[in-house]
Amino acid sequence: MELTKENVLKALSHVLDPDIKKDLVTLGMIENIQIEGNQLAFTVMLTTPACPLKELIKNDCLKAIEKHLGEDIEVEVEMSSHVTTTRDNTPLLPGVKNIIAVASGKGGVGKSTVTANLAVALAKSGAKVGVIDADIFGPSMPTMFNCEHEQPGIKKVGEKNLIMPIEQYGVKLISIGFLTPAENAVVWRGPMASSALKQFIADTEWGELDYLLIDLPPGTSDIHLTLVQTVPVTGAVIVTTPQKVAIADAQKGLNMFKQPQINVPVLGVIENMAYFTPEELPDNKYYIFGQGGGKKLAERFDVPFIGEIPLVQGIREGGDLGYPAIMKEGIVADAFAKVAESTAQRIAIRNAEKKETKKVEINA
Amino acid sequence: MELTKENVLKALSHVLDPDIKKDLVTLGMIENIQIEGNQLAFTVMLTTPACPLKELIKNDCLKAIEKHLGEDIEVEVEMSSHVTTTRDNTPLLPGVKNIIAVASGKGGVGKSTVTANLAVALAKSGAKVGVIDADIFGPSMPTMFNCEHEQPGIKKVGEKNLIMPIEQYGVKLISIGFLTPAENAVVWRGPMASSALKQFIADTEWGELDYLLIDLPPGTSDIHLTLVQTVPVTGAVIVTTPQKVAIADAQKGLNMFKQPQINVPVLGVIENMAYFTPEELPDNKYYIFGQGGGKKLAERFDVPFIGEIPLVQGIREGGDLGYPAIMKEGIVADAFAKVAESTAQRIAIRNAEKKETKKVEINA
Ligand SMILES: Nc1ncnc2c1ncn2[C@@H]1O[C@H](COP(=O)(O)OP(=O)(O)O)[C@@H](O)[C@H]1O
Ligand SMILES: Nc1ncnc2c1ncn2[C@@H]1O[C@H](COP(=O)(O)OP(=O)(O)O)[C@@H](O)[C@H]1O
Ligand SMILES: [Mg+2]
Ligand SMILES: [Mg+2]
Repeated sequence: MELTKENVLKALSHVLDPDIKKDLVTLGMIENIQIEGNQLAFTVMLTTPACPLKELIKNDCLKAIEKHLGEDIEVEVEMSSHVTTTRDNTPLLPGVKNIIAVASGKGGVGKSTVTANLAVALAKSGAKVGVIDADIFGPSMPTMFNCEHEQPGIKKVGEKNLIMPIEQYGVKLISIGFLTPAENAVVWRGPMASSALKQFIADTEWGELDYLLIDLPPGTSDIHLTLVQTVPVTGAVIVTTPQKVAIADAQKGLNMFKQPQINVPVLGVIENMAYFTPEELPDNKYYIFGQGGGKKLAERFDVPFIGEIPLVQGIREGGDLGYPAIMKEGIVADAFAKVAESTAQRIAIRNAEKKETKKVEINA
Repeated sequence: MELTKENVLKALSHVLDPDIKKDLVTLGMIENIQIEGNQLAFTVMLTTPACPLKELIKNDCLKAIEKHLGEDIEVEVEMSSHVTTTRDNTPLLPGVKNIIAVASGKGGVGKSTVTANLAVALAKSGAKVGVIDADIFGPSMPTMFNCEHEQPGIKKVGEKNLIMPIEQYGVKLISIGFLTPAENAVVWRGPMASSALKQFIADTEWGELDYLLIDLPPGTSDIHLTLVQTVPVTGAVIVTTPQKVAIADAQKGLNMFKQPQINVPVLGVIENMAYFTPEELPDNKYYIFGQGGGKKLAERFDVPFIGEIPLVQGIREGGDLGYPAIMKEGIVADAFAKVAESTAQRIAIRNAEKKETKKVEINA
């Protein structure tokens, strides 16, 4: 076949996106085709910069060109990305492509730790990322991002005073911890906490974001209801540890999102603190909290198992020091990077398969 | 001195209760003095059956008798107890001597584990113990007491239908987990959760109890406010793990109880998951979550440090199996027993030093 734009598209229409299971051309992922003599260049627009299948897709493209257009073409493939969204024309958070809830039911299982590491991992991959710390009574983001003493600015936009998120490690952050002294107990009934969350959504200058992660508090109460009643949540990630009492609560969390009147897609389950390994005894795995609980939960509810993170002192230290473990190269960073890629992948698949989530009606 | 009732009391008035720092006679702790020839018997009424100073006090009594009345008296001391209370004439929970909140701010630090083991330890020592599982969104008591499928009976008392607590391991229990299917998320806003707690307090047949422990959810919101607005809480025990993000939340929890308009005495801090020790390497202590955070917190707020519990797989297993670790002899049981004794001691001291807590006014 002759080297023409049309024939290139024909050739590439044999390459499937392994996740979405449609071909790249139908998916509109091929852009910027340039031909000069026997030189061909084009761009593959992935659905997320954190795509774990980047190399695989690139190779499939090269093979398809070779097979259908011949071996003597010099091909240059640029892998870029354009994060997908199903959000459309929404008055709140118009520039935000995906709103991801990180939830668990149970406290202390690592929601905040996962949120922080996921956020930094996605930002490192090139995505625009924000985090809302929705745990009004136990905010962790200021500590985990080492910005406890920052105070967000206020910007007047039109009639409105907008809160400017704090930016750290390439991630935009908002937390009640920036607005009240760390020591003070915020002893509020539900409606006060809910109105703080609404401010973080509606009165904060988020701008353009690929992913806005919501670090939820434990439980299934006011904050959770207010979130799904205020914005359509793209999907929820369930964090759990392996033991029975945690799985029981994770199940409640999962069931909440699956309730017909709430109906937020569950992107998958992350098992945290899967096992403990002492640094000087890397072969010893201590299943302090039990084994395989997260995987079983995912199977039982027929949702993806996104991955597992071991119990490692460095992760806790990273949290307390405000330097997320993902930032320090090693097996822990690799584990978080893998979980971040899988999560991004699950978001892309969800966006390809499902419509925008419906905001929950107030009297649901 | 002659062996008379009066002289026995005189002799024993030299013995101090080491905690309350008053003498046993003034404290009304000597009862049932019996004299026959040179044989003397009397009862020391301790302020709790879980008194860690039992042997010490007994020895002090024997020494005082010997010193003041002579060596040739045959003395028999019975150590009994009568748990003290400051509660008086209250319409709600009239038979309950002490209402103890177990709180933390942070989730997953072991509030429920400590509550379960404390309850069983106190019951084993001979006290009458009840537990209200106030974690409406993540109830753990049914699992931790292996009675997930029990259903409380209803008893008609006068006009009222009262819920009958479940009894397990000598402890009376009530939990939302007995009333709703375990899988279901209880997606309630605050007022619904609060009214469940009120039912557990007002519409449950508690009868006579020395200690009613309240296993609180994380946070400082509706349930916490409803508790202190519904009954005068004798004291609060703060459970924390050593790391910064947990201490930060524990601090908020502590501050809530210390707020002037709430003003519930803080009995002390328990540090949980203090360090991890693999069973086959008992000399290795891994401070996964950091070191000494609980002690520092106690010092900083000038409240007692009650004790520490290590991170031990058997504790988690006990929780998941519904067989609290305190029930299996060994170092873990000893650690919990010590914490239970110290807590009981702190309650007795609080009752000797302070008046009844005031119920918080609704519009506080
Ligand atoms: N995989 C892990 N290894 C070691 N420590 C961890 C891990 N995940 C979380 N932690 C620590 O456990 C504690 C609870 O985690 P956190 O993220 O605050 O939980 P949550 O937000 O669910 O309450 C924190 O101190 C955190 O640093
Ligand atoms: N000292 C400990 N050693 C091992 N596991 C523990 C210990 N304390 C608590 N756990 C486990 O940690 C998890 C969280 O404890 P839990 O009592 O449910 O916390 P909370 O009530 O504060 O949410 C449970 O699975 C429990 O069995
Ligand atoms: Mg958190
Ligand atoms: Mg609990």
